[in-house]
Amino acid sequence: MKRVAIIMGSDSDLPIVRAAAEKLKGLDIPYEVRIMSAHRTPADVAEFADTAYDKDFGVIIAAAGKAAHLAGFLAAHTTLPVIGIPIKSSTLDGLDALLATVQMPSGIPVATVAIDGAANAALLAAEILAVGDPALREKLTDMRKEMADTVRRKDKELQTQLV
Amino acid sequence: MKRVAIIMGSDSDLPIVRAAAEKLKGLDIPYEVRIMSAHRTPADVAEFADTAYDKDFGVIIAAAGKAAHLAGFLAAHTTLPVIGIPIKSSTLDGLDALLATVQMPSGIPVATVAIDGAANAALLAAEILAVGDPALREKLTDMRKEMADTVRRKDKELQTQLV
Amino acid sequence: MKRVAIIMGSDSDLPIVRAAAEKLKGLDIPYEVRIMSAHRTPADVAEFADTAYDKDFGVIIAAAGKAAHLAGFLAAHTTLPVIGIPIKSSTLDGLDALLATVQMPSGIPVATVAIDGAANAALLAAEILAVGDPALREKLTDMRKEMADTVRRKDKELQTQLV
Amino acid sequence: MKRVAIIMGSDSDLPIVRAAAEKLKGLDIPYEVRIMSAHRTPADVAEFADTAYDKDFGVIIAAAGKAAHLAGFLAAHTTLPVIGIPIKSSTLDGLDALLATVQMPSGIPVATVAIDGAANAALLAAEILAVGDPALREKLTDMRKEMADTVRRKDKELQTQLV
Amino acid sequence: MKRVAIIMGSDSDLPIVRAAAEKLKGLDIPYEVRIMSAHRTPADVAEFADTAYDKDFGVIIAAAGKAAHLAGFLAAHTTLPVIGIPIKSSTLDGLDALLATVQMPSGIPVATVAIDGAANAALLAAEILAVGDPALREKLTDMRKEMADTVRRKDKELQTQLV
Amino acid sequence: MKRVAIIMGSDSDLPIVRAAAEKLKGLDIPYEVRIMSAHRTPADVAEFADTAYDKDFGVIIAAAGKAAHLAGFLAAHTTLPVIGIPIKSSTLDGLDALLATVQMPSGIPVATVAIDGAANAALLAAEILAVGDPALREKLTDMRKEMADTVRRKDKELQTQLV
Amino acid sequence: MKRVAIIMGSDSDLPIVRAAAEKLKGLDIPYEVRIMSAHRTPADVAEFADTAYDKDFGVIIAAAGKAAHLAGFLAAHTTLPVIGIPIKSSTLDGLDALLATVQMPSGIPVATVAIDGAANAALLAAEILAVGDPALREKLTDMRKEMADTVRRKDKELQTQLV
Amino acid sequence: MKRVAIIMGSDSDLPIVRAAAEKLKGLDIPYEVRIMSAHRTPADVAEFADTAYDKDFGVIIAAAGKAAHLAGFLAAHTTLPVIGIPIKSSTLDGLDALLATVQMPSGIPVATVAIDGAANAALLAAEILAVGDPALREKLTDMRKEMADTVRRKDKELQTQLV
Repeated sequence: MKRVAIIMGSDSDLPIVRAAAEKLKGLDIPYEVRIMSAHRTPADVAEFADTAYDKDFGVIIAAAGKAAHLAGFLAAHTTLPVIGIPIKSSTLDGLDALLATVQMPSGIPVATVAIDGAANAALLAAEILAVGDPALREKLTDMRKEMADTVRRKDKELQTQLV
Repeated sequence: MKRVAIIMGSDSDLPIVRAAAEKLKGLDIPYEVRIMSAHRTPADVAEFADTAYDKDFGVIIAAAGKAAHLAGFLAAHTTLPVIGIPIKSSTLDGLDALLATVQMPSGIPVATVAIDGAANAALLAAEILAVGDPALREKLTDMRKEMADTVRRKDKELQTQLV
Repeated sequence: MKRVAIIMGSDSDLPIVRAAAEKLKGLDIPYEVRIMSAHRTPADVAEFADTAYDKDFGVIIAAAGKAAHLAGFLAAHTTLPVIGIPIKSSTLDGLDALLATVQMPSGIPVATVAIDGAANAALLAAEILAVGDPALREKLTDMRKEMADTVRRKDKELQTQLV
Repeated sequence: MKRVAIIMGSDSDLPIVRAAAEKLKGLDIPYEVRIMSAHRTPADVAEFADTAYDKDFGVIIAAAGKAAHLAGFLAAHTTLPVIGIPIKSSTLDGLDALLATVQMPSGIPVATVAIDGAANAALLAAEILAVGDPALREKLTDMRKEMADTVRRKDKELQTQLV
Repeated sequence: MKRVAIIMGSDSDLPIVRAAAEKLKGLDIPYEVRIMSAHRTPADVAEFADTAYDKDFGVIIAAAGKAAHLAGFLAAHTTLPVIGIPIKSSTLDGLDALLATVQMPSGIPVATVAIDGAANAALLAAEILAVGDPALREKLTDMRKEMADTVRRKDKELQTQLV
Repeated sequence: MKRVAIIMGSDSDLPIVRAAAEKLKGLDIPYEVRIMSAHRTPADVAEFADTAYDKDFGVIIAAAGKAAHLAGFLAAHTTLPVIGIPIKSSTLDGLDALLATVQMPSGIPVATVAIDGAANAALLAAEILAVGDPALREKLTDMRKEMADTVRRKDKELQTQLV
Repeated sequence: MKRVAIIMGSDSDLPIVRAAAEKLKGLDIPYEVRIMSAHRTPADVAEFADTAYDKDFGVIIAAAGKAAHLAGFLAAHTTLPVIGIPIKSSTLDGLDALLATVQMPSGIPVATVAIDGAANAALLAAEILAVGDPALREKLTDMRKEMADTVRRKDKELQTQLV
Repeated sequence: MKRVAIIMGSDSDLPIVRAAAEKLKGLDIPYEVRIMSAHRTPADVAEFADTAYDKDFGVIIAAAGKAAHLAGFLAAHTTLPVIGIPIKSSTLDGLDALLATVQMPSGIPVATVAIDGAANAALLAAEILAVGDPALREKLTDMRKEMADTVRRKDKELQTQLV
């Protein structure tokens, strides 16, 4: 199976990004987690994206905060789907990272998920890989059923409480 | 090849959405353009998403403005990748549609592109289909080269002008 | 008397939503509190809204955060008045939920109250039911008087302090 | 049948507000359109709201721009449901009016609709009156069907065009 | 000397508003602190503003959060200068109160100070009273000198530290 | 009578600022209109503010756009009340000017009016001068009555139309 | 003298960027205007920045809109001062470009000027070069005097008009 | 070597500003840290900027929050490059300071860095001084290499962990 790359701009993003790795692990999707910075190690980022397809990556997830250029920079160097996770930092509540990730110019898309939305980035990567992988699709469908069951169970529990 | 569905919430979105159809046509990717509303024809939307996989769709693109629920609503009914295009409407400059599209809760991702970013939605759909389609990937790589050549040609032309 | 449904998208909304239930209880208005998710259990939500009138509900209150689609999704399935409570989540201070709730397209209104404004959602539901219920209207008028008296009492107490 | 009051803060709001009147007329709901200003004729506004119930009004719709206090001011003087339409003015794209209308303090709700959402304000008023009026509810249900049919017809027409 | 009224919409505003009272006390300007709510006790607010001039008030300071209507409502009932303090509440960081206070329609001004800017509201009131009161003006000028001296002293102290 | 200074940062602000001059003229309040820039002629601005009291100015109105420092800069040099008009420029809809004008640090207030709110700046200046001038107060009270009459006349005219 | 590079992400930025070229020409500072895209020709941008110092550039000005990565990307590849001009595009009024340009992570600064602030970008470049060039500094000082004179002349002209 | 001035508007800014001083110290660039307020000691600020060049300053860094006028005010009095650090204060998350610093009118640039971006302000100052100082440039290049090495080392460490 194609692998998923999870790249974060700084090790301070790890507490958020970890949820993406866990989701992929739960789905038995192989992945690699890397720290690379669009601004501090731009050549490494370019080299990674240039060769990602040949290294059997199918999707790249990029997490960055503030003027979050990482996802766009990776996307500039590959035609693999790139998923951007805008990370909330100490100011502006993640709005800066969201706009810097999603507002890409015509020609180079970044598939942006919610601010700090690492779990959804992994699920989106899985959905992308599942387009050509019915078994993975099955797993995702099952996961949806479990989610629905959880909601229904919590709803039922609530009825037994006095609210 | 898997088909791409392009769904818009209102026919007033067509001038923006057209760019997505044209990009897909240029890449010889089969697609279907539909008008369906999360709020006015919710059952149709649910039915479409529930059966999209069986109708050989590989990716769904959804365009909507204001409280843009269409992409999220489709995503709630399928594990196919759903790409959201936030449409700028008469107020708030598309910020409402952007937030209503991208800020999805954990479990149901929407791959959001820029406000009015229909061309990029199509390119992202193509990148997703290209994960399992080397010929399509080739086309995307060629398109990138053409884009680069266009930038370089414009740069050269600029040098012949007095700026 | 018609009942009020209070639906929250996630059990994490309960600490906010509880204020709505308490206000209704204080007014002796029958209500039901449910957890249902526009994205995780969309069919349940649709079914609930489709049958709400027949189950003697008069008003539906919906609370959701982030890309808050719940109120709009319920409104798409019923002509009962739907009141939306935008819930503040970990980023963007509730602005995302506010815009995703209030900016509904023409044809399907959602009566939106303040971010985290659960008590006001209940009072609005009561005002709606009171249109045809003079006794309930009386209660609401009395509650207003009590509120005014509380303000006046606090004002008086303040005068006895050195500020 | 109870009447609906439509109050606008300035005659410059009329082009937007007219859509509310037309929707009500289409539903045969009696209404009265007034110009009253929370800031220029506050006593008139207070007097109107204080006596609205006795004049057989069932719902009040208030439209105002900028620091839009009209809906909140009316709500302070009545327990009838008050619906607020934030009007977009020359700056800030209606965000000022939206926040000034929707962010009401606990105790005094305003049912806020979208910026410039006059048609939805009327539909919400109709839904409120329909809680106790099955015939009106029938009309609203029919209107929903017509809306759905219109979407489906446009969708069909689109299929005959080359997009 | 004319008195200054300091009116807050809720007793929860007192921790912020207290700074205004302290500044006035420091300048020997007589003042009265009141709790009155534009929404819960609107008639009291109207009555206060209508009679404020006759009770020898020269300036009114109003503090309110969220959909902060208090200052505008007072201004609608008096031609005394009304100073608005937007109060930061639990969501939106005070932006709602700022816009609801400052964006007044033509004809009824509110002199708005910074979010939570109670001290400045008092100083502005003092500057207004000082237009016709050279002794008070003198005090304000002295206060400015003290502020400048404080800055200079802190600057000097900083030079003795290793930064 | 004390005079009012109206200072604009650029002659491009004149179309907005003119409304302030006209309002003052209508009230027979003497005024002077000046172009001075906090950034291009800072020494002139400082000198103006330093001597404004001695030149018999009672209030200073300052209009500026973008990073609008003019009002704050004048306020730093005088204890006269300074009224700031944030001017909407080509980007950000006046939000930059509003925040740069209103968010003054403790110690130096600026009485901020609405974006482009020149008429209200003049009225606020008049209210300030009227604190010690019963005749001017009378005029302001009359103006309020005229405003109310205008609203009532428009309301009456509206009743004769079919809306 | 060191040269200034002016780089724009798209030829559509030329109408704004031209003002930077004109300002530099007016100051006799040699410059080069280029079109290069962080996303479409990333390798060209990297190569340009890597070699800019050796080609005798002293400052780089970069103009880009939307998710404006150009300035940050150049800065990642050089220790020359990089000045960023956020360009206003069709949505969000330039706020996206501003945040994507200015919110750079620690280690890689971008000297950001106002949205569409091309003239100021050129002046800032000149000020930087003037740190080691007293003759250029003289020119800048003269330009300031001319600006001040223009303001004063316009102020004088205004006094001859009836405002 | 030219010196760098670091000026903060209030001693409360010191915890943020300290990072700028430390960066400069690490690069052996002489600097002076001052507290001066655009609003409380405007004449001191003007005098400082007017004479900064003669006192051998090459760059001025200014840090201020809220309606942050300090950088612009210094820039109005000198043609030395002025770098602005917008400081996050208790409300609005630094957006007010960012806009008040960066949105300078044409003619008077301020080189703005990220909210609370003190380290980058120092690095930008160093880059400016390095334009004419190859040894300093060397240090900056080395610092970049160290930054890259740190990122790579953290990346390597991450690979040894189970993520």
